[in-house]
Amino acid sequence: MALMTKEQYHQSLKELHPTVYILGEKVENVHEHPLIKHMQAGIAQTYELANDPEGKKHLVAESKLIGEEVSRFVKFYESQDDLLAKVRMLKFLAQRIGTCFMRCTGMDAINAVGIETYNCDRKNGTKYNERLLNFVKHMQENDFAVCSGVTDVKGDRSLRPSQQKDPDMYLRVIDRDNSGIVVRGAKIHQTGSICAHWGLIVPAREMLEADKDYAVCFAMPVDTEGVIHVYGRGTLEARALQDCDLGNIEYSKFAPMIIFKDVFIPWDRVFLCDEYEFAGQMVRNFGNYHRHSHGGCKCGVGDVLVGAAATAAEYNGLARVSHINNKLAEMLKTTEAIYGCSIAASVEGKPTASGIYFVDPVLSNISKLYEGKELAEVIRMMIEIAGGMVADVPSDKDFENPEIGPLLVKYLKGVEGVTTEDRVRIFRLIEKLAFESRDIVSNIHGAGSPETHRMTVLRNADIESKKKFAKRLAGIKEE
Amino acid sequence: MALMTKEQYHQSLKELHPTVYILGEKVENVHEHPLIKHMQAGIAQTYELANDPEGKKHLVAESKLIGEEVSRFVKFYESQDDLLAKVRMLKFLAQRIGTCFMRCTGMDAINAVGIETYNCDRKNGTKYNERLLNFVKHMQENDFAVCSGVTDVKGDRSLRPSQQKDPDMYLRVIDRDNSGIVVRGAKIHQTGSICAHWGLIVPAREMLEADKDYAVCFAMPVDTEGVIHVYGRGTLEARALQDCDLGNIEYSKFAPMIIFKDVFIPWDRVFLCDEYEFAGQMVRNFGNYHRHSHGGCKCGVGDVLVGAAATAAEYNGLARVSHINNKLAEMLKTTEAIYGCSIAASVEGKPTASGIYFVDPVLSNISKLYEGKELAEVIRMMIEIAGGMVADVPSDKDFENPEIGPLLVKYLKGVEGVTTEDRVRIFRLIEKLAFESRDIVSNIHGAGSPETHRMTVLRNADIESKKKFAKRLAGIKEE
Amino acid sequence: MALMTKEQYHQSLKELHPTVYILGEKVENVHEHPLIKHMQAGIAQTYELANDPEGKKHLVAESKLIGEEVSRFVKFYESQDDLLAKVRMLKFLAQRIGTCFMRCTGMDAINAVGIETYNCDRKNGTKYNERLLNFVKHMQENDFAVCSGVTDVKGDRSLRPSQQKDPDMYLRVIDRDNSGIVVRGAKIHQTGSICAHWGLIVPAREMLEADKDYAVCFAMPVDTEGVIHVYGRGTLEARALQDCDLGNIEYSKFAPMIIFKDVFIPWDRVFLCDEYEFAGQMVRNFGNYHRHSHGGCKCGVGDVLVGAAATAAEYNGLARVSHINNKLAEMLKTTEAIYGCSIAASVEGKPTASGIYFVDPVLSNISKLYEGKELAEVIRMMIEIAGGMVADVPSDKDFENPEIGPLLVKYLKGVEGVTTEDRVRIFRLIEKLAFESRDIVSNIHGAGSPETHRMTVLRNADIESKKKFAKRLAGIKEE
Amino acid sequence: MALMTKEQYHQSLKELHPTVYILGEKVENVHEHPLIKHMQAGIAQTYELANDPEGKKHLVAESKLIGEEVSRFVKFYESQDDLLAKVRMLKFLAQRIGTCFMRCTGMDAINAVGIETYNCDRKNGTKYNERLLNFVKHMQENDFAVCSGVTDVKGDRSLRPSQQKDPDMYLRVIDRDNSGIVVRGAKIHQTGSICAHWGLIVPAREMLEADKDYAVCFAMPVDTEGVIHVYGRGTLEARALQDCDLGNIEYSKFAPMIIFKDVFIPWDRVFLCDEYEFAGQMVRNFGNYHRHSHGGCKCGVGDVLVGAAATAAEYNGLARVSHINNKLAEMLKTTEAIYGCSIAASVEGKPTASGIYFVDPVLSNISKLYEGKELAEVIRMMIEIAGGMVADVPSDKDFENPEIGPLLVKYLKGVEGVTTEDRVRIFRLIEKLAFESRDIVSNIHGAGSPETHRMTVLRNADIESKKKFAKRLAGIKEE
Repeated sequence: MALMTKEQYHQSLKELHPTVYILGEKVENVHEHPLIKHMQAGIAQTYELANDPEGKKHLVAESKLIGEEVSRFVKFYESQDDLLAKVRMLKFLAQRIGTCFMRCTGMDAINAVGIETYNCDRKNGTKYNERLLNFVKHMQENDFAVCSGVTDVKGDRSLRPSQQKDPDMYLRVIDRDNSGIVVRGAKIHQTGSICAHWGLIVPAREMLEADKDYAVCFAMPVDTEGVIHVYGRGTLEARALQDCDLGNIEYSKFAPMIIFKDVFIPWDRVFLCDEYEFAGQMVRNFGNYHRHSHGGCKCGVGDVLVGAAATAAEYNGLARVSHINNKLAEMLKTTEAIYGCSIAASVEGKPTASGIYFVDPVLSNISKLYEGKELAEVIRMMIEIAGGMVADVPSDKDFENPEIGPLLVKYLKGVEGVTTEDRVRIFRLIEKLAFESRDIVSNIHGAGSPETHRMTVLRNADIESKKKFAKRLAGIKEE
Repeated sequence: MALMTKEQYHQSLKELHPTVYILGEKVENVHEHPLIKHMQAGIAQTYELANDPEGKKHLVAESKLIGEEVSRFVKFYESQDDLLAKVRMLKFLAQRIGTCFMRCTGMDAINAVGIETYNCDRKNGTKYNERLLNFVKHMQENDFAVCSGVTDVKGDRSLRPSQQKDPDMYLRVIDRDNSGIVVRGAKIHQTGSICAHWGLIVPAREMLEADKDYAVCFAMPVDTEGVIHVYGRGTLEARALQDCDLGNIEYSKFAPMIIFKDVFIPWDRVFLCDEYEFAGQMVRNFGNYHRHSHGGCKCGVGDVLVGAAATAAEYNGLARVSHINNKLAEMLKTTEAIYGCSIAASVEGKPTASGIYFVDPVLSNISKLYEGKELAEVIRMMIEIAGGMVADVPSDKDFENPEIGPLLVKYLKGVEGVTTEDRVRIFRLIEKLAFESRDIVSNIHGAGSPETHRMTVLRNADIESKKKFAKRLAGIKEE
Repeated sequence: MALMTKEQYHQSLKELHPTVYILGEKVENVHEHPLIKHMQAGIAQTYELANDPEGKKHLVAESKLIGEEVSRFVKFYESQDDLLAKVRMLKFLAQRIGTCFMRCTGMDAINAVGIETYNCDRKNGTKYNERLLNFVKHMQENDFAVCSGVTDVKGDRSLRPSQQKDPDMYLRVIDRDNSGIVVRGAKIHQTGSICAHWGLIVPAREMLEADKDYAVCFAMPVDTEGVIHVYGRGTLEARALQDCDLGNIEYSKFAPMIIFKDVFIPWDRVFLCDEYEFAGQMVRNFGNYHRHSHGGCKCGVGDVLVGAAATAAEYNGLARVSHINNKLAEMLKTTEAIYGCSIAASVEGKPTASGIYFVDPVLSNISKLYEGKELAEVIRMMIEIAGGMVADVPSDKDFENPEIGPLLVKYLKGVEGVTTEDRVRIFRLIEKLAFESRDIVSNIHGAGSPETHRMTVLRNADIESKKKFAKRLAGIKEE
Repeated sequence: MALMTKEQYHQSLKELHPTVYILGEKVENVHEHPLIKHMQAGIAQTYELANDPEGKKHLVAESKLIGEEVSRFVKFYESQDDLLAKVRMLKFLAQRIGTCFMRCTGMDAINAVGIETYNCDRKNGTKYNERLLNFVKHMQENDFAVCSGVTDVKGDRSLRPSQQKDPDMYLRVIDRDNSGIVVRGAKIHQTGSICAHWGLIVPAREMLEADKDYAVCFAMPVDTEGVIHVYGRGTLEARALQDCDLGNIEYSKFAPMIIFKDVFIPWDRVFLCDEYEFAGQMVRNFGNYHRHSHGGCKCGVGDVLVGAAATAAEYNGLARVSHINNKLAEMLKTTEAIYGCSIAASVEGKPTASGIYFVDPVLSNISKLYEGKELAEVIRMMIEIAGGMVADVPSDKDFENPEIGPLLVKYLKGVEGVTTEDRVRIFRLIEKLAFESRDIVSNIHGAGSPETHRMTVLRNADIESKKKFAKRLAGIKEE
């Protein structure tokens, strides 16, 4: 099969029947739910753009695995150019969707797991890599959307998996036989899981021998028996539920918790089981790749932040004001640094034994550090530029009221030539960009938290050689 | 009459019948509306605490005007100690309410107007000050809650009031006779207006002679005929509407737009009309006072931010982790600087001709600059410390569902000794503190935007004397 | 005796004969040395200004101890007003001297020691406080300049005093008899020691019982036998040695290392000896006081930084440029926050058992944190405003050369109405303000390093009560 | 001729006899002067490393122009790979030299001028490009060191060249005939000019028709008659003059002012004369290239900063302390962002009509913005980590003194296993890295000041397309 169209994607989801709870209710036709459809629209747009002439350049490439054009979202990184193309694809999409479109988690997980299944097989004579390649072929041939599953609930964060009072605080194998394994646990923040076809589940941290049962990696369809998706509530639910004041009129994000209630996985979808020494490296690979993904994506969102701020300034009658231009430049300073470091992490990428290319971890983590801290200041500057109206602009429903609607149209007018409606729309978009908790918290905690990024930078930065440079210049002789 | 109790306050509001629209509906018994009652609760708490032994020390003082104990919220600032007491009162309240309690806008407006009515009378032989004193006596004797009204809708922000295409973009006098004036226009961001008894309306900017009709200051009950309050929607309405997932379980903020649809004001409540040269100084006074108020208030909220982050860390099993302690110290660095500069602005306060004490404008504006920028980073650090769960923790409704409720209790458990319920509560509080648009945008735009604060700092900082210090040290002789 | 005049101060130093080494040479008439005289001039200016009508208000107050007017530099802090007066005095002086004038270390040490001698006597029946009062009387009666001595050389910083391989890495008592004690060790960064009359030596850290010999506090004249001052070289020695290109044409700072080569101290000048449990508190007191001192001083220097930048902009033809004004406001934001927090730390000061007033440690340390980090950015902005000329403006000697002098006068001219000479003077001043290592490093490490300040903030900030505020608002009940 | 060796470079300079003034003296054998030789050593090291196997990979490439291997310092940028190679070369060199080595200004100027001579010829039928190619051939064949000359003295910075009261405040053509032109004016901050063979002089700003005489670009040997180099004094002259306490024991920077006292330039070395519309683009090209150069160079210096800080921490006994690691990671965050944005600016480079590749101006300017501001904080963190000893460590001369030398060796010892001498050396290096005015000011003002970089970012960032992205997502339809 070739690449799916947007319509085929929507159709394909109808064949899936995941178990989903939303705000306390079990929901049957989940893909029509007002809180689900905006995320689904974002993912659908990635299918649409793969069939668009300009988008295709970014989104589609030949797969060595099946010898056909496939979506980059299910392709291995086989060169520095693939890594570059990925960053540019994500920027291209984020400019047009303005929020998360979910598919990079699966892409990054496929590559992260690919490196370690190869390493594990080489060391232990296992057959994980072959299974993974079969899985990826299946994804490529069907153009499926794959989400990853990484973050365990973790319980007491000062304890290792095997030390927790409740042994299920990290996902673990509770049974196994000839046909497969049974897993129990829960993964949180599974962006858009309800709108994916498959999940690729990866350990969340390094493991010791005592944690062996937790060293498990596998794939499963999102509607596998025992898999329960719980929609976690974010900040702006009233808008989608009332179908007004959306801000981003088409797209939005959510990130359910997935509970694995004793789920059976057949062996041919298992890519790690017991080999604890590869667990940490799998998730570190994923993290480094995914911080690199954020580089393109969040720069694209950054373009929307800059564009929204500039539009609001213009609508307020403040285009070309010196301090606003200064702030726009400062906003770009951060967003382009995020992008630039991801581009550089691609160019300095290196092949692994598996043939998959790895990103430069120092640069990809530094990109993420700017997202984790300075991007919050970009958003604050957007609000500063837009003005106080972002706090509490009246609702679309107020505008529809015959008594006060005309008064609002009169009084909320900005500069000549722009309708009040459009001015309100840009304030609503800015509100969405600044206050959608799933997006904002992802800037900070997506792909690991800033402390993880700092540690990764330090571990990879070769401080010893830098000390040598300093000592040599100081005239210190080393024995 | 003595100070009102909380119950008397609630009762007193029932006698008012403001015209209010909420999300497109005209609402009759507005004080019972789920989107209104949490703000009312915050204001009520200021009455409650005035009757509490510890709170009374902060909230109550003797008025020279009526020779009785009154609420500081309707008292003139008659000494540096009054200015200090105000900052400490606001910190005390904000620690206990965690969001806006509205009454400082009225307090600051009374003092700002007090200075200029005195100056105007002295110059022009008007009688505004006497009227104002009568108004303030009335407020003191009845212990009323007073909101100010400052921010006009402004239209094209590059144009002066009289230059706007629609002359109503700033509030203006459209008619006058022996009995009073008629005003038209709209003021936005009127925090809690629906829960106040009176409004004190102040011009929003300096005026030239052409803007004379806009140089108008007056007071009116919030349910005056023609006054329309439009509840502007913020980010978290679903919570109050569904009565769950509140975060701050008792208190919240809103800030309506008030439309003046040809409202009649009798002369004895008019404190400026035509004397345009005092308009700018009134609002500058208000701004400087109100930035000083933010110093105490936002430091108090800051204590809640720090406390919430520290509690979340403890509940996650991460108390006493070095990088978290470091972040807590950095959070305090900002919140205490905000407080410290307001305290210093009090100590360096000076009496005006009216006898009212004025704050040091450099220090009060610098306090606000830290709130406008660095406080956003404090909030980001709170999220960083708390972890990704702040993005999308399941709803109270999910916990109530018999199928998934027990699974959520199991999987969202943190450290031993803390219930899952309490852990979720702290995440919800953090979500509320980080994503309530009315609070966050107020940090940036409340009491003017950062550019205004910078300009005020520059205008008051006596750069010329600093140049003299530098030149003298450099050996540059001035003629 | 009354307050000394500037001339009397200079004269009084001639009677002292400290042992001093400068750049490898033992120097006899040290007070005439080009590297010493600029610091001496700064201290002399504090005497001069105490006799000036405006300066006297800041510098002189009545001592309860001797019932006469004394310099605040040798007075106890007996009220919040004394703490306020101190901050304002230091700002006043720093605006006029532009660098360190040394005397606050002694003032802060006198008070820090005063609190603990009182506490120690009360607990142990010792007589330290009486001795200290006698010492202070002597200082007051003679209007002496007192430097403190705190920072030991410390050796391996991961080890306690008694754990060091060389036991002399912290100053210690090596012998004692009826007449007194003998001490050995070295203290670094002793600002201006060569121009003081007396030193007051304080332990540098908390001590355990094993460190008893290191728990020693005493006073001695700076020319006591065995006391060796080693001038530590800073960045700009060529200027003073060549007597040109000084920048600050009168004043400069240095901070020798003092070696105690088995120095005898009579008992009546010993204020702690063995009572190790008071050592830590002494230095913590000193630190908290001295960070408070920096608040006034560095804000005063900050005024010079702002003034120098504004002057350079004007001389370049760039007065009133928008981005420069913006930077001046940002510079003030930091310098006034430093000041404001010190003022607030005074107002929130509290009396100790000794009667001496203590500063609020949270606010005084936060003031210092801004100095330690953000003040560096103030200096960077000064350079940014002034332009590249700060890097390498030709020397006064170049201007004196008949061949190139006129060409330089021609080509380095800025705006009309300002001589090239004055323009060069302001660049030189800026260079001095930005690159004098003693000043810049003092911003960061003076009165302890930023990590110490952070720890002090955390230890004193009462996080537990902040957690209670948060829990109450979240609806978490505490048992 | 092949590539020069280090010795050949030193020898070649002896044949040049530039007119040089140093601190008021005319100097004859300038290349032996203590203030000159350390810069010369840095440039010499670029020759040495071109002949080293590892260095050659970075420094040497085939020139299409002469069909031979040449130094990249005199080569055109003919591909994205050339731009990448340049950034990596500069990082490689800066790690080993720790300060400026001057040659990138010439390299960037050659390319900047190359683009515009081509454009000018195409438009005006001039022959500038051919002359430039001949000049570059000559540089390549002789492996000469070329410095650029850009920054005019500028007089009153609010006035254009032709508006200045003294017409010589920008370099201009004062006479011309068949053989060539005569120029007058002065250029400041000409890094290492005295140690180059040739200078390539470029206009400093855009010009209007009235400024035609100022639109002049040419090359000349540094000892051309009438060319006067005035060594501008920086902060650390005493060290080189006394030959001790150098910090960086081999290398240092200086940046003379060059006065053109009516200098004759033959036509075949003139690359622009009168065509004012190309002047601005020449310097903008140069700026964008040179900011890109800083990306590699300052990241390399950054490695030295990080290495020096880490070494000092280790020598103090504080290796592996958590807050120090945190700061090292923060230092890397900035230095690698500087590097990463320059790498990305290369990858996103595009060919110009001339065939020369141009860098992405948004990314190259953003790299420079981090250098201009955040690198100062990196340096501050280095000082914070190293400790107060950086302020005023005793001189080498003190250590040589037989009386105090042994005491200093004793007392300034740090951790076991490191000599006091080495510890002092690292403090001296840090002092040099933090306080050499030529380096620090170059971070801020080299290649234009931050405001220029911001404007360049804004001008090139295509804000309009970003506004479109935002409007589309908000549902705003554009006509």
